[in-house]
Formats: sequence, C-alpha cells, structure tokens
Amino acid sequence: MSVNVKPLADRVLVEPAAAEEKTVGGIIIPDTAKEKPKKGKIIAVGNGKADEPMTVKVGDEVLYGQYSGTEIKIEGNDYLIMRESDIFAIVG
Amino acid sequence: MSVNVKPLADRVLVEPAAAEEKTVGGIIIPDTAKEKPKKGKIIAVGNGKADEPMTVKVGDEVLYGQYSGTEIKIEGNDYLIMRESDIFAIVG
Amino acid sequence: MSVNVKPLADRVLVEPAAAEEKTVGGIIIPDTAKEKPKKGKIIAVGNGKADEPMTVKVGDEVLYGQYSGTEIKIEGNDYLIMRESDIFAIVG
Amino acid sequence: MSVNVKPLADRVLVEPAAAEEKTVGGIIIPDTAKEKPKKGKIIAVGNGKADEPMTVKVGDEVLYGQYSGTEIKIEGNDYLIMRESDIFAIVG
Amino acid sequence: MSVNVKPLADRVLVEPAAAEEKTVGGIIIPDTAKEKPKKGKIIAVGNGKADEPMTVKVGDEVLYGQYSGTEIKIEGNDYLIMRESDIFAIVG
Amino acid sequence: MSVNVKPLADRVLVEPAAAEEKTVGGIIIPDTAKEKPKKGKIIAVGNGKADEPMTVKVGDEVLYGQYSGTEIKIEGNDYLIMRESDIFAIVG
Amino acid sequence: MSVNVKPLADRVLVEPAAAEEKTVGGIIIPDTAKEKPKKGKIIAVGNGKADEPMTVKVGDEVLYGQYSGTEIKIEGNDYLIMRESDIFAIVG
Repeated sequence: MSVNVKPLADRVLVEPAAAEEKTVGGIIIPDTAKEKPKKGKIIAVGNGKADEPMTVKVGDEVLYGQYSGTEIKIEGNDYLIMRESDIFAIVG
Repeated sequence: MSVNVKPLADRVLVEPAAAEEKTVGGIIIPDTAKEKPKKGKIIAVGNGKADEPMTVKVGDEVLYGQYSGTEIKIEGNDYLIMRESDIFAIVG
Repeated sequence: MSVNVKPLADRVLVEPAAAEEKTVGGIIIPDTAKEKPKKGKIIAVGNGKADEPMTVKVGDEVLYGQYSGTEIKIEGNDYLIMRESDIFAIVG
Repeated sequence: MSVNVKPLADRVLVEPAAAEEKTVGGIIIPDTAKEKPKKGKIIAVGNGKADEPMTVKVGDEVLYGQYSGTEIKIEGNDYLIMRESDIFAIVG
Repeated sequence: MSVNVKPLADRVLVEPAAAEEKTVGGIIIPDTAKEKPKKGKIIAVGNGKADEPMTVKVGDEVLYGQYSGTEIKIEGNDYLIMRESDIFAIVG
Repeated sequence: MSVNVKPLADRVLVEPAAAEEKTVGGIIIPDTAKEKPKKGKIIAVGNGKADEPMTVKVGDEVLYGQYSGTEIKIEGNDYLIMRESDIFAIVG
Repeated sequence: MSVNVKPLADRVLVEPAAAEEKTVGGIIIPDTAKEKPKKGKIIAVGNGKADEPMTVKVGDEVLYGQYSGTEIKIEGNDYLIMRESDIFAIVG
C-alpha cells in the first residue's frame, strides 16, 4: 500500500508487523530480551540528511528498537515515524 | 493567508489545525499515542542554516511533536514557531 | 538611537518593547503561552561567528525567548545582550 | 552459517560464543573482571558510515562489552546486533 | 600598564573596573539584574584558536559575565583570566 | 611476547607492570596521588581512527589512568584493552 | 633538568613551583581566590593533536588550574601531567 505521508530528513514511516506474526522470515523475537527489537515494513522514506543518504527503501522488512518512533494512525491503520538510525537491520 | 513574521534560521511558523479537525487527509491522531503528533500548516519559513537548506515550504501540511514550538498570537490567531527538525513529515 | 556598545561574535543588543505595548505590528503575546516570547528592537549587532554571518540588522523588530539575554542599563535605558540564536523571528 | 539479516550503517550481527567455551584461542575471560568482555563471531556486517568504513568482517572472532548489543533470535539461535564501536578487538 | 602574562589560546587578561566606578562611558549595571555583567579593561590577549582569531584587543573596555574568569594578583593588582567567549561586548 | 589479539580503531592492549615493580625507569607512583597513574607495556595497537593515527607502538612503556581499560586474560596473563586517549605518556 | 617522559597528544609535564615561592615574577596567588591558579614550569610537551599544534614549550613558566593534572613522582620529584587546555597563561 502507499500513503500520502512524506517523512522529513532521515525519518521513515514504518508499518509494524502484527504482534502474533513472530516467525516471518525465520526471525523470532525472544520474550526475555533486555530490549525487544520489533519488526516492520518501510512504507515511506525521507530524502536523508545532507551528508547521509538513506539506506532503507520502501518495502524493506526491518528490525527496530522497542521504544522507537512516534505513533500515527492513517486511514485506520497504525504506523510509526522514526529516524533511520533507530533501525537495526534489514531482514528477509 | 500571509503574516508579517520572518522566522530566523531553521525555524518555521505553523498554524495548528483546529482540535476537532482530526481526519483531514485521512490522518487520525490516536488518543492513546505515547507522544501525540499534531497537524498544522506552514505559514512562513526561515532561510535555513548554512549547510542545511529548508525542506518544507509555505502551504505544506505537516505533522509535528506535541510539545514543539513557542506559541504566539498574530491578529487574533494562534501560531507556533518551531525548528524544522521538530517536524516529522509532510502530509497530503 | 545609537549606543556605544559593540556586541561580540553572534551577540546582539536588544531594546525590549515596553510592557504595555502589546499590539505593535499586530502581534499579541498570549498570557497563557507556555513560554512567552517577547518583542524588542535590534540596537547593535556583532560581526557573527566564522561560519555564520548575522541575519538580523539594526532596527529589526524581533521576537525572542522570555528568559533570553543579560540585562544592562545604558544612559538610563534597559537593554538586553543575547545571542542571535535566542531570536525566533523578525516581525513587521 | 549465513543469515538473511543485513545490519545497517556501522552495526554488526554477532553470534556469541557458548558460555562454557572459555578457552578458545587461548583467551580466558576472568570472573573477577570489572566489566567482563565477551567473545563471539561476526555473522554479518553493515556498510559502515559515510566517513568510517568497517574494520571487522564476516567470520572474525571478536571481543565485545558485556552489556553491548540487542538480542535477536534467528531460526532458533541467539544473536546480538551491536555497533562496531562496541567491539574491542579481533582475536585468533 | 603592561604585565608579563601571555594568555593561552582564546584567553584574555582583564583588569576589572573599580566597584564604585559605575558610570564610565554611560553604562550603569543595574543592581537588580538576573546576572550582573561587569566591566573591565583588556590587559593582554592570547593568539586565539586555530579557526577563531581574537576580536578584542589590549585597551578595549569590555562587559563580561559576573562569574567569569579566574582571579590572579600581579604586583599587587587584581586581574581575571577568562575566555573571549565570556565577554559580551566592547563599550566606549 | 606477542599475542593473537588485534585491537580495533584507537585501542591498545597493555600488559600492566607488576604491582611490586614501582621504580623501573626511575618512575615512582605516589601512594597519595588523587588518581594513581599506572605503568604498563604496549603489546598490540589498533590502526587508529580515520583522522588520528596512533602514536604509541608495541614495546612502549606507558603511564595510564588507574581506572582505564577492560581486563582480559590471555594464556594465563592479565592484560588491559584501552583507548590510546587513556594513556598519559610514554616513559623510558 | 630533563626527564625521560614523553607526554602524549596535547599533554604536558609540569613541575609545580614550591608552595612557599609565591612571588616569582611578581605573580602572587591570592588566598581568597575562588579557584586558586598554580604556577609551574613546563618540563616536557606532547606533539599536539592533529589540528592543534602546541603553544607552550619546555622551560615556560605557566599558570594552571588548582585541580588540573595527575600527579607522578620521577626520581624523587613531584610532577603533574595535564592537557595544554588546563594551562591559563605563560608568565615571566
């Protein structure tokens, strides 16, 4: 899907994976982790900062920190806006 | 509308969206969000800093942090002055 | 008026607007603002820092933070010395 | 082994050495150390940051700080994602 | 007067104005100021830092922060050593 | 001796001098010092950071801060891994 | 005198002036100073940092902060190792 939100600078819009979906791509988040990374899909990306082009692109499945981002709701769905530096890795 | 205020450096003047207007452009701000982003329209922009030109422009609808900016009242209307880095995304 | 004070670096000398003068240029500072910006006129400006030339100039009407600057009294009048980064916008 | 995780920027994916394996390569971690460094193997590396190419490579045995990284589980195995700056040295 | 002290880097040696001398050059320091700036004369200046040449010169009358500098006594007189960034403005 | 440990970036591997060896090279560490510097020998050095080549080299006797570094044990001997900036001086 | 200690980077080795020697070069340190600067002689200097060559040289009499540096004893004498930025001025 696409949404009419353009993140600024080094920010990205992420659609969090559903909570019950714990094994997509073979990645399981342990319940006992100190900080539980979460999974999601990149929906929109900013243009990056002057000296730091963006690495992730729309459609990437990513792992990000449990407390990262700001929640927004678009057409009934929940999303997160966060900085690319909050993203640990691309999976899949 | 236009106002006679020229923000300095990387600051922008924002006209907050009315509180009851929660669904313009399909964006709904959830009441339960950790930090509720707010919506508004860019009224005036600064010239940016030496190495960082501005991204937003007059007329853009934007999402910004709940606690961002300083309130001022111009000809009876409420506005906020904030830095561009306080803005999460352009919508619409 | 002119005074014999030359601010250093990115500092400016500001003559605060009288407290009762709340509507010059159509700008009213709301009493209920979280941080009340104040208005004043630029009396003298420094030469800026190496990589940051000054934006404001003598005579500009400006908005600045409520707690910005250091008070000095020159020939019976009260002034403030502050950094240009303490100034939010030029008005008028 | 290889996994389908691509760390971002200066991050690496590390497979921690088993707790009982204390003497591989002649390195023993003292129980009384102020901060106990831990050993592991590099499984995947990011592309580095703009001005800092990565030093470690896949397969390197490394020492890293006891509290470094974020745990994730991939196909039943435990891994850590951390920044290269959390790694003290390459051993072996 | 001259003294045999060469400040390092961006430091200056300041001779504070006598406490009773409150009106030289028309500048009066208000007793009620949040932070009272003080006046003094530049006696010696450092060579500046690599990318920041010095602005003040020997003989300049300056305003500086109330808590700036370190006291030293040279041939019976009190002086202050401070950084140029502690100086607000040149007066006179 | 040599060990199979390659410190990363600006880190070095140091073999601390034995506690009873207090007078090697004429250097005595006073018991009453606010922070007692310690002596040791450089065993391995990193490649430095992008803009800061390393100054110390293998074999140098150095003084370093009392609380610097992380302890590791290699083939029965105690070592410290620290950053070059934790080293005060080369002696001998 | 000379000692076999080579300070690293921007560090210097200082021989503190004897406590009773309060008037050398006409400088008297006031007992009532907020922070009492101390006097000493430069015995050895580092090579500076990449973009900051050293200003002081061996033999310079300097003023430095009361709490600056780390004490070491070399052949029965007390010295201090500190950063050049801890030195206020060269005297004499």
